[in-house]
Amino acid sequence: MARLKIKGLINLNGKIVPIHKAMISVMDHGFLYGDSVYDTFRTFSGYPLQLSEHIHRLFRSATKLELKSPLSHKEIETHIFQTLLAYWKRFKKEDVYIRVILSRGVGDIGFDVHLCPCPTFIIIVKDIPRLSQKYYEKGISVALVSTLRNHPKSLDPNIKSGNYLNNLLAYLDAKKQKAQDAVMKNYKGEMTEATTSNIFIVKKGVLYTPSLKSGLLKGLIRTLLIDMARKNHLKCVEKKITQQELLKADECFLCGSIKCILPVTRCNHKKIGNGKPGPVTQKLMALFPNAVRKCIQEEYCIESSFF
Amino acid sequence: MARLKIKGLINLNGKIVPIHKAMISVMDHGFLYGDSVYDTFRTFSGYPLQLSEHIHRLFRSATKLELKSPLSHKEIETHIFQTLLAYWKRFKKEDVYIRVILSRGVGDIGFDVHLCPCPTFIIIVKDIPRLSQKYYEKGISVALVSTLRNHPKSLDPNIKSGNYLNNLLAYLDAKKQKAQDAVMKNYKGEMTEATTSNIFIVKKGVLYTPSLKSGLLKGLIRTLLIDMARKNHLKCVEKKITQQELLKADECFLCGSIKCILPVTRCNHKKIGNGKPGPVTQKLMALFPNAVRKCIQEEYCIESSFF
Repeated sequence: MARLKIKGLINLNGKIVPIHKAMISVMDHGFLYGDSVYDTFRTFSGYPLQLSEHIHRLFRSATKLELKSPLSHKEIETHIFQTLLAYWKRFKKEDVYIRVILSRGVGDIGFDVHLCPCPTFIIIVKDIPRLSQKYYEKGISVALVSTLRNHPKSLDPNIKSGNYLNNLLAYLDAKKQKAQDAVMKNYKGEMTEATTSNIFIVKKGVLYTPSLKSGLLKGLIRTLLIDMARKNHLKCVEKKITQQELLKADECFLCGSIKCILPVTRCNHKKIGNGKPGPVTQKLMALFPNAVRKCIQEEYCIESSFF
Repeated sequence: MARLKIKGLINLNGKIVPIHKAMISVMDHGFLYGDSVYDTFRTFSGYPLQLSEHIHRLFRSATKLELKSPLSHKEIETHIFQTLLAYWKRFKKEDVYIRVILSRGVGDIGFDVHLCPCPTFIIIVKDIPRLSQKYYEKGISVALVSTLRNHPKSLDPNIKSGNYLNNLLAYLDAKKQKAQDAVMKNYKGEMTEATTSNIFIVKKGVLYTPSLKSGLLKGLIRTLLIDMARKNHLKCVEKKITQQELLKADECFLCGSIKCILPVTRCNHKKIGNGKPGPVTQKLMALFPNAVRKCIQEEYCIESSFF
């Protein structure tokens, strides 16, 4: 096995080790069945954004799989801070990527949840995967792919789980079309989301994003942006979005906890709008740092001078 | 972590270790994303049934995920035989459960397949999970669940992958209804399969099994049974099967590489037929050992006296 060269630490059931030393059993059902839930976020100036909401979502995902966390919300927070502290001491970097995973744990082959009495709890803290600055300036290209987003009655897209092949297959489709990411439709042909992001379009100055009814993750940055847009007198509508509406949009962007706001300027090799990040996208990108600041000041009860 | 008390060995990238000592990285994409394929089968009197077909299917699953095996078909066979030999020497048992897993391997977070240059290759050899004999004699009860089988354009049910939550959720649904297993419909309402088995029904002496077009795994025992039935002058039809056809069937059974043929005598708490394993099911169960014998004699080129 090649040794991983990543600056990172892993908290594995409470023990913090370098990333390449964190080992789990082959018989962990997280490995055998993808029977795990996770949530992902990052720090800004050292503070994890929307930490409490991410942990709440982790619990909601776990509940949908009848997976019981061995740790309380507060205990998870404490483990995250301990792991961040160890990371900062070791790597002297305050902005990091965080992934919290709760897996079913080790047990014999089978679906009976009693086979696995001890869930595995993991926190990965590592460097943030940085997208090239040019993508933020010029936008990326996406492809509308033939891989459909999971049917909510097959595997609810609101469970952030270790079953990620649906998104991976969509990504592989997009790569074959020389696009940077995929936009996935649901089985009825409605737009849902990209492989690790929510999607917004702009038409005549109004923001639109697929309705949760189309079957997609209720992203926390998606929620933050809807709120931020409305506070800044931008109309934002959640609705069923068709392929034609995406292709004929004036602007388009993706959003997520790691990539924040990423302009999309091509879809299926065709320009969206004039093929450059548009004024509404740019306005939101400009407003975003302040919204993050406010969020963190409120969450951590700190004075504005601290952030 | 609780120590697993299973009689088993694991071949992990060529090294054979006791089951509780087989450890993989948290950063294995098989764990992070369920990005792995597998196949499962068992031995009869020491011989793995349909070995070559299972390895072929593993390769087909892998190809659909653009996952390249580091080992050839013949090399995998050799590793399986080596692991079986080690198992027999240690546990003195010739009939075992075998699971071969090929996972994407260790790499940084992300979908780019180049992040993981070395796939992880695993063979689990362990005791066969034995269903109570009474289930074979009296039949099990199944529930028609609300969890729908994955849409073939979301995640093809013919990819045997480490993304098993769809089936797990169906199983949890069935347990809530006090049934032993679930029967899953597709998004159009057609019957597909149980959580780890194919399904057959019998009506007026004719066997029916859901068509592959309904979106289900082309099970190797399913194929063997269709062939065996026809050779024994039993009509067997692959077709779209409705919920009503299942509920009004004279007989029903599940089949799979581990459970072989398992009668189903109740569905949604209602009797199927007279609530006992029917004559066609019993005939197939009686014919099955000889079909297995023939298969193995042909596959391993052995005289009938050897098996």
